Order: sequence, then C-alpha cells, then structure tokens
Amino acid sequence: MEEKPGMEAKPGMEAKLGVAAKAGMEEVARPRPRDRIVVTARDLFHKHGIRGIGVDAIVEAAGTNKMTLYRHFGSKDDLIVACLHKVAGEADAIWDLLDEKYQTDKLGELHAWVRLAADCVVADGRGCDMANAAIELTESDHPARRVIEEFKTAQRNRLANLCRAAEVTHPDLLADALSLLFEGARVSRQSVGAEGPSARFVRMAEAIIASFGKQPAERASKTASDIERGA
Amino acid sequence: MEEKPGMEAKPGMEAKLGVAAKAGMEEVARPRPRDRIVVTARDLFHKHGIRGIGVDAIVEAAGTNKMTLYRHFGSKDDLIVACLHKVAGEADAIWDLLDEKYQTDKLGELHAWVRLAADCVVADGRGCDMANAAIELTESDHPARRVIEEFKTAQRNRLANLCRAAEVTHPDLLADALSLLFEGARVSRQSVGAEGPSARFVRMAEAIIASFGKQPAERASKTASDIERGA
Repeated sequence: MEEKPGMEAKPGMEAKLGVAAKAGMEEVARPRPRDRIVVTARDLFHKHGIRGIGVDAIVEAAGTNKMTLYRHFGSKDDLIVACLHKVAGEADAIWDLLDEKYQTDKLGELHAWVRLAADCVVADGRGCDMANAAIELTESDHPARRVIEEFKTAQRNRLANLCRAAEVTHPDLLADALSLLFEGARVSRQSVGAEGPSARFVRMAEAIIASFGKQPAERASKTASDIERGA
Repeated sequence: MEEKPGMEAKPGMEAKLGVAAKAGMEEVARPRPRDRIVVTARDLFHKHGIRGIGVDAIVEAAGTNKMTLYRHFGSKDDLIVACLHKVAGEADAIWDLLDEKYQTDKLGELHAWVRLAADCVVADGRGCDMANAAIELTESDHPARRVIEEFKTAQRNRLANLCRAAEVTHPDLLADALSLLFEGARVSRQSVGAEGPSARFVRMAEAIIASFGKQPAERASKTASDIERGA
C-alpha cells in the first residue's frame, strides 16, 4: 500500500535502497490470526475502499471467522485503525532505510525521496491509504482520524527535517510544497491515470527543489525568500 | 460543491469576481423534482461520501420518492454521474467568469486563480467531489470514471492555456505543478485540517509561479528549462 510524504515498504524499494529488510521476516512463514486479519483487511481496503469491504469478506479471505476477528478487534473501526498503524509503521521503516543509506549526503537523500515518491505514484493506482481513509471516513470523530492526522504531520515533519539537514534555503516551504505535490500526484493518478500530470512528478519536484529549495549563492533567491518572510 | 483545478461556484466567489451569477437564478424559487434530487444528492454525497449515502436518504431529504428518482435516473450510478456533471458545469462557469474579468490581464487571471483555489481549500473541508469520487468508486469500469477523467483533464488544460496566455516560460510544467499542488492541498485539508500545509497554498503557488513560471529575462532560467527539455 501506502504512503505520503512517506511511502510503501516493499521488496522492490528495499532492493533499490540496497538494504535488506530486517523486520518481521521470521513471521512470514506462519502469520498469527491477528496478523493475517490485518494483512488481509489492509489489502482489501486498499483495493476496494474501506466502505466497500465488510467484515464477512475479510474473515473469508483471511481464512478465519467473525468470532476470531472480534476477539482481536472490538469493531471494524478498531481493525481500520490497526491497518493504518501498519501503514504508518512501514512508512517509518522506509524513512529509516533512507536515513541509514544517506547518512552523510542529505541532499542525496532528498533526491532519493523524490525518486521513491515517484515510484509510489507510478506503481500504485490506488494511492495513499491514509489519504483515502481521510476521504472515506467522513465522521469527524472517527478513531482513524487521529491516526491519519498524526501520521501525515509526522511524515511532513520528517521531510522538513531532511530539507533542513540538506541545508536547503527554505526547508519548511519546500517540505510543504513537496508534501502537497506528492499528495496531489497520488490523487491525480487515481483520477486521470498514469499518463496525467502525475507522470511529471519527478520533473516538477526537482524544479521546485532547484528553484526555491537549494539556491546557489550567486543566484538571486529574492522571490522565495520574500514570500517565506511575508508569511 | 467543487473543483480542482477548477473550483466551486458559490456566491462569495462571484461577488469576489465582481460579476453577477447569471445561470439558474430563475429556477431557485421552485426547482423541478429532477433538479431537487441532483442538488440534494450532491450535497449528501459531498458531506457523507458517495458510499455513505443510499437512495432512501436522498429521496427523503429531497422530499420525493424512489419511483420519481428511478424515473429520472435509472440507477444510483446514473445519479452520481448527473451530480458530477453539475460539478463540472459550475467549475466551467467559474472559469468563464475569470476569463471575462481578466480579458486583457492573463497574468492577473493566473494570480486570481491561485486566490480562488486557496479560497476553495480553506472554505471546504471535504475537498474536491471529483477526486473524492475517484477514490470512493474503485471499480475501473464505473460510469463516473470517464466523467472524472475528462473533467480533470479539461481543467488542467484550461489552466495550461491560461499559463500560455499569461506568457509564462514553462506553461505546461507550471499547469501540472499548480494542478497537483491544488489537488494535494484539498486532500491535505481533509487529512490534517486547515492548519496543515494547505494553509500555505498561496505562498507555495506564488513561489512556484515566480520561480519557474514567469522568469524575467535578466534572471537565469536554466534550471527549469533544462528540466523541461529533459522530459
């Protein structure tokens, strides 16, 4: 599945990062019922939407029964929250891998983030599970809303910290812009497909980094500076 | 409501544009059942999601019955399509008002588009009906998908035409970037609320326009040019 400004943990990405995935490997062979329910529910929610899937379909696909599901999760809402926590954990793991690989080259890490984000946009036509959940779960008091808000805020702040470490001129403005561009690309991919504006994500993100992120001293940085100060 | 890169037609915006709304005024007093169903359904879909609302709730709120609904719309899917066509029509009307007001100042129109887009982001916590529908309606063959794709493509192209008329240096790249930024802002508004990155939409959009949209001759435009050529 997922994520923005973080992204999906999946084998292809770990291989690309040249770092082996360490977590959870020993559990792959025989997942416990609880884990099997979460993995199955997350996959079905991702494909068909949270509201498009009921607990009956989940227990059937997970090869379990409702009693087991409700023993582990008090309600469908609790299961949704557990799925979103899993999404968040995987996005954090990808960030950790990035940080580990680019310990001494933070600008390099920023460019790597752009490429990974682009891979997410291209690879997954269903976009970001967190954003999709925010759109589907319209109730303002839904327990998932706090998870979504905390996750999105943390991801944006992690990107802002990377921008600061990369010593770009306007780290907060750049992190906001890249976050929204990524969010928009994942939604656009769902609306108009892979050939739409999201296909130019890398070009746009790199142009934004070049234009008001990292500004060589010899180039006038007046515009973005003025705008940032004028906040 | 809605739209992106177009936006919602509403009294506040028309007042802001200094142009009186012309369409549909004579129908306000006594809408026909079909129109009443569309207006009601659209409002309920917007607030609660397309999957969160059934035809029973729609006919009750519209003060009509299922027989009347099904006489006008063969199915809920047909009604969804009619609602999205209404969204598209209103977004086009806003564009027409903008074009009319800024006939000889296309750069001014671009800045006005940014302000109107920001108003949409702030005013409406439920975002873009078209994007929301794309996320909710996961079936690849849903009749609404064609409407959504055509609408988003047309809106993006209208913005690109405006960028060209405004004689910015990279009209297509700018239109793509502003489209995704706007899309992302509307989704972010739903995930993290009005205080998140979407609050800085105007600042980001103006920085992007200033940086790789309109570049004075005396400033090096190498970066964005190189990136656009490298496509």
